[in-house]
Amino acid sequence: MTDSPVRRLVILAEGRFGPHDGKTAMGVIRYGQDPVVAVIDSTNTGRNVREWLGDRPRFDIPIVASLADALALGSSRGAPTALLIGIAPTGGKLPAAWRRAILDSIGAGLDILSGLHTFIGDDPQFAAAARAAGVEIVDYRRPPSREETAVGRAHGPGKHVILTVGTDCAIGKMSVALELRRAASEAGLASVFVPTGQTGMMIDGWGVAVDRVVSDFSNGTCEWLVEQAESKGDWIIVEGQGSLDHPAYSAVTLSLIHGSTPQAMVMVHKPGLPEHDWDHVPDRTFPLQPLNDFIRLHEQMAGVVAPSKVVAVALNTSLYADEADARRVIAETAAETGLPVDDPVRFGPQRLWGAIQAGVEALDPTIARR
Amino acid sequence: MTDSPVRRLVILAEGRFGPHDGKTAMGVIRYGQDPVVAVIDSTNTGRNVREWLGDRPRFDIPIVASLADALALGSSRGAPTALLIGIAPTGGKLPAAWRRAILDSIGAGLDILSGLHTFIGDDPQFAAAARAAGVEIVDYRRPPSREETAVGRAHGPGKHVILTVGTDCAIGKMSVALELRRAASEAGLASVFVPTGQTGMMIDGWGVAVDRVVSDFSNGTCEWLVEQAESKGDWIIVEGQGSLDHPAYSAVTLSLIHGSTPQAMVMVHKPGLPEHDWDHVPDRTFPLQPLNDFIRLHEQMAGVVAPSKVVAVALNTSLYADEADARRVIAETAAETGLPVDDPVRFGPQRLWGAIQAGVEALDPTIARR
Repeated sequence: MTDSPVRRLVILAEGRFGPHDGKTAMGVIRYGQDPVVAVIDSTNTGRNVREWLGDRPRFDIPIVASLADALALGSSRGAPTALLIGIAPTGGKLPAAWRRAILDSIGAGLDILSGLHTFIGDDPQFAAAARAAGVEIVDYRRPPSREETAVGRAHGPGKHVILTVGTDCAIGKMSVALELRRAASEAGLASVFVPTGQTGMMIDGWGVAVDRVVSDFSNGTCEWLVEQAESKGDWIIVEGQGSLDHPAYSAVTLSLIHGSTPQAMVMVHKPGLPEHDWDHVPDRTFPLQPLNDFIRLHEQMAGVVAPSKVVAVALNTSLYADEADARRVIAETAAETGLPVDDPVRFGPQRLWGAIQAGVEALDPTIARR
Repeated sequence: MTDSPVRRLVILAEGRFGPHDGKTAMGVIRYGQDPVVAVIDSTNTGRNVREWLGDRPRFDIPIVASLADALALGSSRGAPTALLIGIAPTGGKLPAAWRRAILDSIGAGLDILSGLHTFIGDDPQFAAAARAAGVEIVDYRRPPSREETAVGRAHGPGKHVILTVGTDCAIGKMSVALELRRAASEAGLASVFVPTGQTGMMIDGWGVAVDRVVSDFSNGTCEWLVEQAESKGDWIIVEGQGSLDHPAYSAVTLSLIHGSTPQAMVMVHKPGLPEHDWDHVPDRTFPLQPLNDFIRLHEQMAGVVAPSKVVAVALNTSLYADEADARRVIAETAAETGLPVDDPVRFGPQRLWGAIQAGVEALDPTIARR
């Protein structure tokens, strides 16, 4: 993994900048450490990231039509040093236009940062060009060489492990985990975020894209990530993946639950979604689970390996434009579940973190000491 | 995969021939199509496989101390053509003595058949030796190049998909599936066994070792295996893996449940086991789940993607030496669960298959047509 002292990004999000298809781009802009010089998306040329994320200096990022335009910006943030691929290509194959942008970036001396399943560094043309230009290709999804099944490790004394789970994929489990980590740190706690996907890795500089690990080792890899996190702090907040009822990704989700053996889970939910985010077979839909039943199912499934409790619900209220509507849904969900509920991305994580910390500290000792 | 017309096996099971550590060896001997010339296990030299598996002609296999002894047998079954690695090395690394046996086998003109996570064919020394000798190395666990997430495919009309699940790993889910397939075939049904592990693949000549697939694609790979099976027959019997409460393997188990979307499951259970087969952390034990609760949990977990019912329990009564004891446990389990129960390996699969077929045909149409 690169660890260059100064890294300035151009983010490739051609045709799909936005909160869903561009969730890697959005995540890196919102939560990453490296300044972003420009976003490439010719369908949004002339707009600014502030229009999506709000008026903060970090979000003042122009959207341009091409790499050439990005390089020509003469940004006050300095010349870019890396191209970050901020979206996934449809069908998993690299479009021809992207190949061109990647090769041009390498030619311009930029490192290539990618979270795709297809490893850029394994492409002979890209690899040769990178060697010639002396730039680095980082494939965040490349799995670690360590291949071990879980050993049934117990958590260290005084370590609190919290996993974000969710009612669907792509609704904000990573963002919630990052917001909670921030609140925990601001509260003076030694807190650690555990990245389990490529975007989280880009943001936090370590971790494993668990969905790329050989399935026999996915529980074991999550266990190992938590072991590493426990050496760095006491409050471990693990980024969840997928959902336990997702036709395609449920196995990855369960490896997080049984591998990281959290004492507590935070259920992330996006009210207003009619059904699973799922368009593979057009005439089949997969409904979302009733929230209380799904919370119980998580506790039950976690519990067959190690006891765990859902201590809070984090809502993604982005489908409710009006703030009063969002607060109403939060209150309704609190009444429905009997749990602390908030939207920590929209309204700040402090209140929810306070409730989570209290909930974890109040856990039955038979849970807390696992 | 090799498809040679005549293949005669020597099985390497050094130090560990037996039903647990040598489960690959046992499975291939019991259910495979290729004759077995000899088993190598110097700790059991002079014994015969009949002592474990009973007095059938196929099981009349001498156990010898070395490859040289196997080659010197002059067996009436003919000279061996392949070495099959029938056990997994402790810690995943190939012991030095095995390297010798593999190289000597290649030198003697034998193909190498392996289900290890470590691919024999990727070892430069083995690969070079195989090239020089003109023999083939088959690594059954090598995943297919196809890498696709599940698409939410519905089963074809009139297709019945049955998955074996279990209360632990290594208790006989594959054997039960093979026995049920045999009974279904004998009953005149177009039945298909779906191998999802290396031993099943060695036996049936197709399939995927799902535990070796990248976790993002494990549900999708199971879905694809069932799609292939549906083109071959109407009664699809899928070999399960691991158990839903296993600290290390539960993610693989769930990928089978949500990927193959069985309309019916058969719960495999080994009464008398005190706890999970699990020795990684000596001072931690993982209890088995109460049977009825675990059956309900399977139906619930399956049901969040596609409805499914546990229609029978297949017991592995091998811890009850006395046949009357075994039959008593079967009766007790039937009373406890209210389901058809038998030990299809010990007492034959016909009775249990009859009950399963009836159970599947009686399924609620909302389940049966998924």
